[in-house]
Amino acid sequence: MAATTIPRNAFYAQSGGVTAVINASACGLIEAARAASPRIGKVFAGRNGIIGALTEDLIDTSCESAADIASLRHTPGGAFGSCRYKLKGIDQQRAQYERLIEVFRAHDIGYFFYNGGGDSMDTAHKVSQIAEHLGYPLVCVGVPKTVDNDLPLTDCCPGFGSVAKYVATSMREAGFDVASMSRTSTKVFVLEVMGRHAGWITAACGLAGETAAEPPHIVLLPEIPFDEARFLARVQECVERYDYCTIAVSEGLLDASGRLLADMGTKDAFGHAQLGGVGQQIAQLVKDKLGYKYHWALADYLQRAARHIASRTDVEQAYALGRAAVELALSGRNAVMPVIERLSDSPYRWQLGVAELKNVANVERTVPRDFISEDGFSITEKCRAYLAPLIDGEDFPPFRNGLPDYVRLQNVPVPRRLPEFTI
Amino acid sequence: MAATTIPRNAFYAQSGGVTAVINASACGLIEAARAASPRIGKVFAGRNGIIGALTEDLIDTSCESAADIASLRHTPGGAFGSCRYKLKGIDQQRAQYERLIEVFRAHDIGYFFYNGGGDSMDTAHKVSQIAEHLGYPLVCVGVPKTVDNDLPLTDCCPGFGSVAKYVATSMREAGFDVASMSRTSTKVFVLEVMGRHAGWITAACGLAGETAAEPPHIVLLPEIPFDEARFLARVQECVERYDYCTIAVSEGLLDASGRLLADMGTKDAFGHAQLGGVGQQIAQLVKDKLGYKYHWALADYLQRAARHIASRTDVEQAYALGRAAVELALSGRNAVMPVIERLSDSPYRWQLGVAELKNVANVERTVPRDFISEDGFSITEKCRAYLAPLIDGEDFPPFRNGLPDYVRLQNVPVPRRLPEFTI
Repeated sequence: MAATTIPRNAFYAQSGGVTAVINASACGLIEAARAASPRIGKVFAGRNGIIGALTEDLIDTSCESAADIASLRHTPGGAFGSCRYKLKGIDQQRAQYERLIEVFRAHDIGYFFYNGGGDSMDTAHKVSQIAEHLGYPLVCVGVPKTVDNDLPLTDCCPGFGSVAKYVATSMREAGFDVASMSRTSTKVFVLEVMGRHAGWITAACGLAGETAAEPPHIVLLPEIPFDEARFLARVQECVERYDYCTIAVSEGLLDASGRLLADMGTKDAFGHAQLGGVGQQIAQLVKDKLGYKYHWALADYLQRAARHIASRTDVEQAYALGRAAVELALSGRNAVMPVIERLSDSPYRWQLGVAELKNVANVERTVPRDFISEDGFSITEKCRAYLAPLIDGEDFPPFRNGLPDYVRLQNVPVPRRLPEFTI
Repeated sequence: MAATTIPRNAFYAQSGGVTAVINASACGLIEAARAASPRIGKVFAGRNGIIGALTEDLIDTSCESAADIASLRHTPGGAFGSCRYKLKGIDQQRAQYERLIEVFRAHDIGYFFYNGGGDSMDTAHKVSQIAEHLGYPLVCVGVPKTVDNDLPLTDCCPGFGSVAKYVATSMREAGFDVASMSRTSTKVFVLEVMGRHAGWITAACGLAGETAAEPPHIVLLPEIPFDEARFLARVQECVERYDYCTIAVSEGLLDASGRLLADMGTKDAFGHAQLGGVGQQIAQLVKDKLGYKYHWALADYLQRAARHIASRTDVEQAYALGRAAVELALSGRNAVMPVIERLSDSPYRWQLGVAELKNVANVERTVPRDFISEDGFSITEKCRAYLAPLIDGEDFPPFRNGLPDYVRLQNVPVPRRLPEFTI
């Protein structure tokens, strides 16, 4: 008679800034884990990311209906809560790593899925190391996510395509508005978008226009140091030619000395500067130096939560990567992350691949120089060829009473088995 | 033998801030005028609104294909250009009014259609008066338009329903984002929306939440003077209960003395204050007094240009009002404006009606006190019953290459027949 093995449970957590499609990855992952039963037991989610593991605040996703899990595919935000909380090196915070393993042991967790960006992949890598060091059997798989599109080894990052579609749509729409009003009112419009070190989102604004005459007339990326005189000359030229000028600017725009234009002096938990307001600075500069009336918009969370105009490509990839994480884990791959590999631009074809977490951690991929025009103020055809498929296709959520019908899960807690732990 | 009458042409102009659906009104009006041929000749549009009439800068809309005119229905902004340019009283600017009639006479214009808000209805009324005074036969019909929803005598204003749908969707989506992050990051999120004197757009944000626990937790309308202490107490209570707090604030928020919180000291051509930044002020106040980390978004033009998430109700009404203007004109009604009359809330039923321009001009309709909760921080069921049908239904534009496919018209000029006129 064969020995019966009790299936080991999985832990899943969302980390860092959430996106319009991080829940689509959760959906793919939970659906794949359910389908893999009995090889995987329950999926426990960390409430507020890794903090849920440290504090043994686990959510039993098996309490959720199949319909509600399916609805995650079209729901923005992080359904289980995310966090900005970075585990330091194992040597510095050994107690925290040991606590993680203790919690995993208490709940028979054999799979660790961590859905996040570069910092999170670093954490997932460290968790795999400490588990191995402590002799605790744990399969660690990262699931990529970041609106910033700055992870290496994957052609693109889930979350980016939907932000890209939102900002390009918004820039196009605002452009039609400003063009209508420029004769007697606003001449200059500035849209500030996210992107701390990488200008991918700002570059995506460039998709809004198909000719030089169409908005945006100028994109300001963190990869190109801001040159005030050249910028103002371009704005003036643009207003003289078209009667208006539209500008997309990254929150992470730097001056020639490498200083953030918008540095407010505050830092987040990862030690990153908290940014904001560069759009108004740029607009005010134009007003002061050229006298043009301006308007500016700050998309902020609206851009990364805009599930109503998500990219179908992005949703499909986010979902597929969630599923792939489970498949990798079941095939015994450890300390890896599924990635997107591009096979061709047009027609767009992609497949799933695998990267080692140790190669992903803490490497940022910025916009290559040949994706940016020589003058630094627009994107090249090469950049368009890369970006265009990522915003392709619509995947509208269901609507109820005129608004997107998003799901709120029950998030039933798993009974605690351990003493409290203060983080 | 019956005398042949040459059909008289029509003049159409867009005025004031444009919307996601002002072109739907243009579409309805031009299609109805074409269908009414030969009773109406050509439709000439004013380039940049009334300025096009004053400077004899007319656009021959008959050069546009039926398909392109049909595409106006799903294109935001003002296809012929709008303007912020207010004609003063007839006594003060008699030369301008006389010039208008001179241009109309030179191009055999017998119909004057003016698509705008309260100021524009005032202008249309004055144009009808001067025409009558000068013995020039002219039928003047206003077409209502304003995102502010502040015109009297109509149940709602085209443009508002789509902004309402956009801001409520955005608030709901951002709410999901903030709820995910509040454990370690942002506690307070502020969305600043338009609404100079009337809080309709801010009230519409309230539709995002169906219970007190759901965003937005606080709405700040210009109808309720801002009370710092009560506001801060509510924010604190909300963060203590839900771990986060989301706030929608109108650009036109006033303090107890009636002073605009965001008055930047600049005025537009209508003499209105140019506003902006109250969202950040409110957020910074919370940070300073309660210490909560915040994010804020400034929707600005994104909200009124967001045709991608237009309300189907709004699009249908905007289109119907454009058609109705032509029908009123052909039935010989002068100095009137077609309006929306509500027959029932649920199921929502509406019909077209007619208002006299003299009763519309310069009256602003603000949010009634019984639409706002006693504490001033949320909307009542009565308000919901009024607002809900206005955001109902989707009317997605066609997409091409991942983005909304909006039309740009040729805007062929009509040859000039008169000497130049400087405005």
